[in-house]
Formats: sequence, C-alpha cells, structure tokens
Amino acid sequence: MIAFNHILLFGVGLIGGSLSLALRKSGYTGKITGIDRNEASLARARELGLIDEMARSTADAVGEADLILLAAPVAQTAPLLASIRPWLREDVLITDVGSTKSDVVAAAYRELGDRVGCFIPAHPIAGREVNGPDAAIDDLFAGKKLVITPLPENTGKDIEKVAMMWMQCDAVIHFLSPQDHDNVFAMVSHLPHLLSYALVDQVARHPNAGLMFQYAASGFRDFTRIAGSSPEMWRDISIANKTQLLQELDSYLAELELLRGMLASDDAAGVEAVYANAQQARLNWITTIEAAEKQGGTS
Amino acid sequence: MIAFNHILLFGVGLIGGSLSLALRKSGYTGKITGIDRNEASLARARELGLIDEMARSTADAVGEADLILLAAPVAQTAPLLASIRPWLREDVLITDVGSTKSDVVAAAYRELGDRVGCFIPAHPIAGREVNGPDAAIDDLFAGKKLVITPLPENTGKDIEKVAMMWMQCDAVIHFLSPQDHDNVFAMVSHLPHLLSYALVDQVARHPNAGLMFQYAASGFRDFTRIAGSSPEMWRDISIANKTQLLQELDSYLAELELLRGMLASDDAAGVEAVYANAQQARLNWITTIEAAEKQGGTS
Repeated sequence: MIAFNHILLFGVGLIGGSLSLALRKSGYTGKITGIDRNEASLARARELGLIDEMARSTADAVGEADLILLAAPVAQTAPLLASIRPWLREDVLITDVGSTKSDVVAAAYRELGDRVGCFIPAHPIAGREVNGPDAAIDDLFAGKKLVITPLPENTGKDIEKVAMMWMQCDAVIHFLSPQDHDNVFAMVSHLPHLLSYALVDQVARHPNAGLMFQYAASGFRDFTRIAGSSPEMWRDISIANKTQLLQELDSYLAELELLRGMLASDDAAGVEAVYANAQQARLNWITTIEAAEKQGGTS
Repeated sequence: MIAFNHILLFGVGLIGGSLSLALRKSGYTGKITGIDRNEASLARARELGLIDEMARSTADAVGEADLILLAAPVAQTAPLLASIRPWLREDVLITDVGSTKSDVVAAAYRELGDRVGCFIPAHPIAGREVNGPDAAIDDLFAGKKLVITPLPENTGKDIEKVAMMWMQCDAVIHFLSPQDHDNVFAMVSHLPHLLSYALVDQVARHPNAGLMFQYAASGFRDFTRIAGSSPEMWRDISIANKTQLLQELDSYLAELELLRGMLASDDAAGVEAVYANAQQARLNWITTIEAAEKQGGTS
C-alpha cells in the first residue's frame, strides 16, 4: 500500500497529473496538493481533480507533506530543492521524475546537504508528445519502467516506499546508477529527440517547406512524433546531459559521414549492410519487447 | 471504372499484393497475373488469392496483359523494362510504384525507346514496415496520395486510365514533375529512413547495446519504425536518388553541427529556439493534415 498521507506535487502537468490520476485509481485516499509556476495550469489541475488543493505557500505546503514529488523541467530541480529545504518535515521523502539523473543527484547533494538521504531520484519511462494538465491520463505508467537511481544515503525502507507508490500505478521498478541511466537515455531517448527536432526544423526552414509538408506521410509522422514534445523540457534535458549526449551525437555524425561516403561512391552493398543490420537489430528488439510484455511486463 | 482486363504484376509483395486486394474489393473482375523473382513469394501470393495465376513465362504474360505494373525495388526497373519490351501489346500501358522518379523515367526512355509513351510513372505514398505477400492489406491506399509524374509522351487519356485505377483503391491523385517529386521525397522520406537506420545501427554496435535496447521505449519505437523497412528497397531508393539525398543529408549534418555547438557552449536559448520552431511547425502540419482528412482527403 501507499505509505504517504499527503503528497505535494511540484508541477501538475502530464507527469504529475497522470501520477495523481493513477494513484486515485489505485485507491489512494490521502491528500494531493499542487504547486505550479503556471497559475493557469494549477487552476486547471484543480478543476480536473488532479489535485485536492492549490498550495497557499511553499512553506505551508512543504510543511504538511510527507511526500514531495518534483515534476518540473530538470533545470528547476536545484532552485526547487533550495526553496523547500527550510520547511521539510523530519519524516518527509522527496522524489523526482527527471529524465536525467547525474545532474539531479548533484543538485540534491548541493541543495539538501545533510538531508540528502530523504531524496530518492527516479525516472518513469513514460510520456506523451502532449503536455499540461489536460494531457494527464490514469494509465500513463501501466506496464512502463520506473527507474530508481538510489543514493548511498537512502535507506532500503525509504526506497521501498517510493517504489511501492509507483507499483500501485502498475509501473515496473528498475534500478540503475545515475551514470548508467544517463548513458543509456542519451542514446535511446535524448539523441532521438534532438534528431527529430532537427529534421522538422530543417523542413520548416526549407525553401520548399510548403510542398514538403504537403507530401510528408506516415513515416515522417512517426519519425517526428517526439518533436511534438515540450521544447523547454527537452532543452533542459539536452543541456543537463550534454556530456553523454555530445558523445552519442558525435558517434552518430561519424555514422552519417560513413553512409554519406557510401552513397557518394555508389557503394550499394555498404549501404545495404548498414540498413540490414539495423532492420535485424530492431526486429530482435521488438520481438524481445513483445515477449516481455506477454509475460506481464516483468524483466 | 477500371479500363483494364488483364493486369500483370511484376512483384507480388506489400504494394503489388495490396493493389490486387484493393482492386478486387472495388469490384474489379478482370484477370491478375503475377511474376516475382522470389518463387516462394509468388506461390504464397497465389495461395492468398492476390493473383489468379503465376505467369508461365515473361513473354506469354506480357503478351496477354493490357496493364503491367512494376512493383519491385527501383533498381530492377531498367532490367524489367528491357525484359518486357519485346512482348508488349500495341494497346498496353505500363506503370510503376517506385519511390524515386527521375531514375525510373530515365530508365523508361532508355529501355522503351519509341514505346515510352505507354509508360505512366507513379508513386503511391503508402507503405508499412512489413513486407511480402502476407503484409498486403486491402486498404493500404485508402485516403493516401498517388503521385503521377507524367511524361510529355503520355496521352491524357492513358494518364486518366491509370489514375482511375488508383482512384478505385480510394487513393487521391496528385501530379508532380519527376524532379520535384525526388526533391520532396528526399527530404520527407528518404532522409528520415537513412537517419532511422543509422540510429538503430549505432545502438546495435554500441558496447552497451543490451542495456540500451532494454530501456528503449515508445519514442525510440516510433522514431525507428521505418528502420524495419526492407533494406534492399531502401538501398535502391537511396542510391537512385542519391544526388537529392546527399544534398539534404549535408543540410542535416550542418543543422546537427549547429546544435552540437549550442550544446557544447551551454546555449540553452539557442537549443530551445530550434526545438520550439520544430514543435510549432509540426503542430501546424498535423493540424493542416487533420483538417484535410476531415474534408475527405481532397487537396
């Protein structure tokens, strides 16, 4: 069951709002308070029933909460932690949903000092390309991974409390180090986002943009779905994880230069070998994923 | 109505097979014969009812057909045209479904000579990331664009016959020059395929490939859906349209270098501007597309 009685959400958009809906669906009867720098979003979240009340002040809301969840773009982690630090209860736990972890962990050490043990860094591998309270859905996390990157200062019991909350939302708990987390997601998430944004930007700035958008079809639509994501959120992620992201971007640039050379020299066999390796690897991946999903999402 | 009585399909995979199913669904009662270099595919197409009969020989089959449809990878266009040239009926029309048009048109002039007027170059903007006769579906072309890139030697009446056949499959007819076609599709289709293949290949060759595939999620799945496509088909397209593809690839490399510099110098505002421009352009595109779909796909 859920160990918390009063949850405070910093950020009531897609992720914070979906967590709230999922918790209610699972039978959570405690209080959920919200804070958001966007007052219209906050009011809308109240209207939609994502939160029971809008916080009167940070001091009051933090002083009452036994779980604080940071669900704002990752660059706000440090200022948010600094702003809540003076009002934390003795028994509070703090967790987050940031798509990067090394920078979030560094911010936690810097801002929370001797209270860092109450911060359990986490990242739900779930999202949609739409944002805000109206995008929240109650099954966003169902069957999806929730990665916890624990600190040495965390107790097993506290980690379990946060894990249990996410398990109530039908998420599947995984553990990684912050560094492994950031390596992996630079490659399979942060780089694809950058590449997708870059392609749409190129089309939009093209002299023939109108004609091109007219003939763009389902392949383009899927390739660029993630370019519909929040620019601010992905700006923060790109900058926060830039060391890993630049490393994978450089590998990708080298891969493109290789393909460029093959095309320029009519090396059809070379081009086909790259394409075929990718096709086979993706097929293996999809097959593995589908097998895991049939087993109920455990892994 | 459909002006043809005997259609010969060169290639009985996804596109050829789906055309056959769509024609039958629309009430076409003429004959459909198939030829495929892959004998197993040809037998399977017969088994699935995609074709009425397997051609006994190219000479016989071509001599009987009043419409010949080339639905094989584009590099086979020239050899196929050369092989059918001696057996063409006086009243035959030939059309194709190739994703590139300048090279196909050049092959038609070269191989058909004074008979080039019977060749109507076309490209249905529809596909799936699965291939072969078993992937064929009867609504693949419904609401999708069919681009015809007519030759000066084509008569309006012949173009109309081919267009009518596709309209029976609920496709929406468009006209472009071969050059405009290849410019547009290099950007919105051929480049995204190359980029998607390149990304999966990079992950597959990564020292951490296992961990990375484990955490790849829905964003990665959509971005790489087109990397599930036929490597041979996309090798041929990439090489056939390499001049346009290299031009757009070079622009894309420049765009990535720009973003690389912004990341390296922590230019968060610069990164956000690119992402925001892409997000807005994609939103405008989706909105326009959805409005057009509500109007019944006319454009």
